Amino acid sequence: MASQEVPKTCKVILADTIAKKMMAEVKETLAKLQGTVNSKPTLSAFLANDDPAAAQYAEWSKKTCEENGFNFNLVKVQKELLEDAIVVANNDDNVDGIIVYYPIWAGNQQQDRYIQETVALSKDVEGLCHTHLFNMYHNQRFLDPPTNLRKSILPCTPLAIVKALEHLQIYNPILAYGNRLYGKTITVINRSEVNGRPLAALLANDGATVYSVDITGVQLFTRGSGIRAPRHKVLDKEGWGLKDVLPLSDVVIGGVPTENFKVPTDLIREGAVCINFSSYRNFDGPAVKEKASIYVPSIGKVTIAVLLRNLVRLIANRDAEKSKLDDLKDD
Amino acid sequence: MASQEVPKTCKVILADTIAKKMMAEVKETLAKLQGTVNSKPTLSAFLANDDPAAAQYAEWSKKTCEENGFNFNLVKVQKELLEDAIVVANNDDNVDGIIVYYPIWAGNQQQDRYIQETVALSKDVEGLCHTHLFNMYHNQRFLDPPTNLRKSILPCTPLAIVKALEHLQIYNPILAYGNRLYGKTITVINRSEVNGRPLAALLANDGATVYSVDITGVQLFTRGSGIRAPRHKVLDKEGWGLKDVLPLSDVVIGGVPTENFKVPTDLIREGAVCINFSSYRNFDGPAVKEKASIYVPSIGKVTIAVLLRNLVRLIANRDAEKSKLDDLKDD
Repeated sequence: MASQEVPKTCKVILADTIAKKMMAEVKETLAKLQGTVNSKPTLSAFLANDDPAAAQYAEWSKKTCEENGFNFNLVKVQKELLEDAIVVANNDDNVDGIIVYYPIWAGNQQQDRYIQETVALSKDVEGLCHTHLFNMYHNQRFLDPPTNLRKSILPCTPLAIVKALEHLQIYNPILAYGNRLYGKTITVINRSEVNGRPLAALLANDGATVYSVDITGVQLFTRGSGIRAPRHKVLDKEGWGLKDVLPLSDVVIGGVPTENFKVPTDLIREGAVCINFSSYRNFDGPAVKEKASIYVPSIGKVTIAVLLRNLVRLIANRDAEKSKLDDLKDD
Repeated sequence: MASQEVPKTCKVILADTIAKKMMAEVKETLAKLQGTVNSKPTLSAFLANDDPAAAQYAEWSKKTCEENGFNFNLVKVQKELLEDAIVVANNDDNVDGIIVYYPIWAGNQQQDRYIQETVALSKDVEGLCHTHLFNMYHNQRFLDPPTNLRKSILPCTPLAIVKALEHLQIYNPILAYGNRLYGKTITVINRSEVNGRPLAALLANDGATVYSVDITGVQLFTRGSGIRAPRHKVLDKEGWGLKDVLPLSDVVIGGVPTENFKVPTDLIREGAVCINFSSYRNFDGPAVKEKASIYVPSIGKVTIAVLLRNLVRLIANRDAEKSKLDDLKDD
């Protein structure tokens, strides 16, 4: 009897819900930017690997673009010809943003890194150019301080998780912008250069106490006591593991790219918020629903919405740059 | 240099801000109830003690009533004549709600309790009649289940703190109504029958893990693992004290009615939310602002807004009762 009467206490939030809300905002911003001119922005996507996950992601991106008034131009290219193809797109005024599907040289991350840096800063929709990454780590939100007309671009998956946490009201809008995670403890499992480390930095820069966990151990990302520092510092937590950090965490974020890893449910705090951004399921779904207050099983569709949000931001940055140059001419 | 550049990270929220928002809602509800009839509701307040704090509270209540379209009728009466005066008000159709300032018989709490029960349930604007208290402890929100037209009245100060926590977005509207504190740990310092115990029960019934602390020790109020129970249970935490519960708490609520008590700031979690409902300052203001994310130094004005909210609810309940009786006559 009792088991039927008890309502489910865990709220499952699908990426689709968050993505739809965000796409409505993106379209609104785009309409304002375009004014009466109604040319579609173009995203050029470069596929130079054989990863079926990348092909799938490209397919979803194409669909989302076409449904929302963007052109999606998929370029399949041999990896040896990729660099030249990117340079052509950098110089093509009809291309507004560039995305490349990684990994390309599986055994050579440095060469992937070289490709990331080849993309022009003004078309870096993924936020992977060094200037964008540097600004993110340094909690510097604009490309052109102190004018502050052109916003720096943030990497898509970490920003998608920030947007999910805003939707879930974990960011508290009562607090000052930039400090809205103050008082929250968050564990991020994964510390890759593409996702986990930037995510830990973003969350700590917004005021959270972040435990960043990978197979090498635990690091604490924080702006310190009273979040007085303007950006996060990183401290090694010698000998710590999930058993130490999960019971302290209001939010647990899994991003481990393997099928076998599962976050131990028994260590998760009662009523925690659990978010998975791995393409594998890092949480034991049925068990976590008995313990979490909110569970977000995947984030992919939000990542695509962020991609288009970034594209619109690149266009706004370009327009801001243009009008500044026009102002200079007028003087 | 650094100290000037660092923005204050603690947001101080004044009761006035919360009260004003609530009074706007109360006036809106009242206008709907009244329709075209524009008679002012009347609150009768009985002052039978010499407490200057009670006189002050009556003064504020009078001001708030008159500013917001309510009649406030202050009756000063000898304590020996109080019971008869309340009975007269119970039977007076021109009186919509009754408030009594406690304590009256300082050495005899049972006699105060007798007076509370003398107030008619239909005019108990303070939510202190046993039926209202019973419903609150049992997480039963209506007086007339399963019809559910007449809402049970909640005591003013505990409800004022609930309303403050809603304003501060500690209640997460993403979660189902009734479960919106799930995942939050809250310490309430004070376990009086009028304020601390009902508050701990309300918060636990809404899904929080609540540590209720007084000089006799710590009790845990909770709906259990996965908040599966429909209402809270209470567990003694043998040997526990503030040192055990404060470091775990997202929210710390002080209601100790003495000048000397201060919540030890060093035990409060970084970025916690701190709320004082004592007429004394239970927090060391300057110190707590260096550690809390949000600080609410007093709650009195919200309590008065809740008083009028309850009054409007009593009128709505009476109207619901009347139209039900009319329906029965029509049958």
